[in-house]
Amino acid sequence: MTENYVLTEDLAYIFKKLSAQEKEKFKDTSILITGCGGFLGYYFMHFFAQYANDLGINKIIALENFLTGTKDWLDELVSSSDKIKLYEFDVIKDDIGQIEGAEDVDLVIHGASIASPTFYRIYPLETVDANIWGMRRLLDYYVEREIKGFLFFSSSEIYGDPFPEFIPTPEDYRGNVASIGPRACYDEAKRFGETLCYIFNQKYNMPVTIARPFNNYGPGMNVNDKRLPADFAKAVIDNRDLKIFSDGTPTRTFCYISDAITGYLKTLLHDQFDVFNIGIDKPEVSVKQFSEFFISHGREIFGYEGNIVFEKSSDSEYLTD
Amino acid sequence: MTENYVLTEDLAYIFKKLSAQEKEKFKDTSILITGCGGFLGYYFMHFFAQYANDLGINKIIALENFLTGTKDWLDELVSSSDKIKLYEFDVIKDDIGQIEGAEDVDLVIHGASIASPTFYRIYPLETVDANIWGMRRLLDYYVEREIKGFLFFSSSEIYGDPFPEFIPTPEDYRGNVASIGPRACYDEAKRFGETLCYIFNQKYNMPVTIARPFNNYGPGMNVNDKRLPADFAKAVIDNRDLKIFSDGTPTRTFCYISDAITGYLKTLLHDQFDVFNIGIDKPEVSVKQFSEFFISHGREIFGYEGNIVFEKSSDSEYLTD
Repeated sequence: MTENYVLTEDLAYIFKKLSAQEKEKFKDTSILITGCGGFLGYYFMHFFAQYANDLGINKIIALENFLTGTKDWLDELVSSSDKIKLYEFDVIKDDIGQIEGAEDVDLVIHGASIASPTFYRIYPLETVDANIWGMRRLLDYYVEREIKGFLFFSSSEIYGDPFPEFIPTPEDYRGNVASIGPRACYDEAKRFGETLCYIFNQKYNMPVTIARPFNNYGPGMNVNDKRLPADFAKAVIDNRDLKIFSDGTPTRTFCYISDAITGYLKTLLHDQFDVFNIGIDKPEVSVKQFSEFFISHGREIFGYEGNIVFEKSSDSEYLTD
Repeated sequence: MTENYVLTEDLAYIFKKLSAQEKEKFKDTSILITGCGGFLGYYFMHFFAQYANDLGINKIIALENFLTGTKDWLDELVSSSDKIKLYEFDVIKDDIGQIEGAEDVDLVIHGASIASPTFYRIYPLETVDANIWGMRRLLDYYVEREIKGFLFFSSSEIYGDPFPEFIPTPEDYRGNVASIGPRACYDEAKRFGETLCYIFNQKYNMPVTIARPFNNYGPGMNVNDKRLPADFAKAVIDNRDLKIFSDGTPTRTFCYISDAITGYLKTLLHDQFDVFNIGIDKPEVSVKQFSEFFISHGREIFGYEGNIVFEKSSDSEYLTD
């Protein structure tokens, strides 16, 4: 279905990592996914397209607002599989009841959100709306129906800046987050989204589960995303210098997309309310080290000629929480 | 206007505590207040009714959903002042544009919310809705109009359980709050409400201000409110024992309503985005000490015969965050 061998291998890896019991849970299901054209959507959609028959999935309802344009890969998937139904849909304002087959969905993956700090700082209200109002509309719609799983994408950002003794961060760490400030639109919207999940589970027994992604990277990420892996990749492709807007010492862990997707699927199929960090604990890589990977592999693969440049961000609040 | 001498004295105290500059800001204004029949509304409404002429206030649009029944005191105020217009209004679903004069409002006080832990645990969605959806609807409506002040009632609960070194708690403390759990519906809704205020200020330059109340008490509090001062007062009135559902050692500070209202009015008139703790730092009173006030003064004033009884709450999550 795809001729990208990295992707093909990754999809097989994800399939292999699911237990027989988990695979069984996909049988005869109809799956709805919002934000299907995003970075995570890229893998979810390819995975479902590739393995729908093996897993016995009946239907995949794929929703996307196409704010970032049409996606050739999505059109290709749709034309290659009669199980995938793609709709232009804005989770903030469109009526899910108008989508054919939405009422018979068994599994919901709510992936629609701006996730890039650069963009959520520019579009704070839109960020809030997809996470909170969009989420609420989905919960209100599915609370009256029988579903088997509902996955909400929270974020590692709900922890804010954990005190050092809470790194790696356990799920019960309450976070160190500013309710006011340029990052709050994302962090607090995700926190409040979790609270909504909790309320709907407690009150209506909905099988909602929460994933908190930690820095995913891999194929499918938009090179204009502005997050570190995308930004460095784009600089290499453009043969420009890699710009670092700090002193390069902040560290991150980066979780490869196939591991992350495996985790999300397991979270979706968990059957009962719970919250899972999806990421890796080690290695912690500094921004400078990370940039060096791109430089050395860039040289090797693409004949990249750029170097690291330390700059001050034009956004005065770049390093502000 | 009122024959309650405590209230009359308190209103005069509040008036005296406003600066000439602050008083001037009320001149020729139209004020909208949601949740006008609540505990804080009781003082706001009496204050505005009493001092509308002195302050040159043109109109007070008072909104209340009357979920807790009609209020005689509110009817009396309305019939005694031609400046007060009272409407039955549900901030979650009703259209503010339908309220006569709403479009010409200068100052908005959004006080509508369930604030009692006993009730927000029973009604988590309603709690969330008034704080988040109701708030958003007001912001969306007033963002296109010229207003001079918009007061959002957040809560000291946005700090959760501060680490001891952050008591007393400065406004820039980020809090120690669980996004999941029985208190989250209130704590996270208030946090997210603050984020909304921040976004609307940053994006549209709205003069929104945030107050974080710390345990207010005084006349106007519903004796069925279930919060400590109300609960103890009701037990004294009913001549029942005072039940304490902990070992009595947790401490609180309690801020008398006239001091609090003074703070809220100053916050409302602050002109620019900011957030203020409204409470007192000292004395910290343990629940047991607090109950002893009620016992000794209850004996003196009402011939109260009850005593302190330590009980386990029937709500297993009573002490859970």
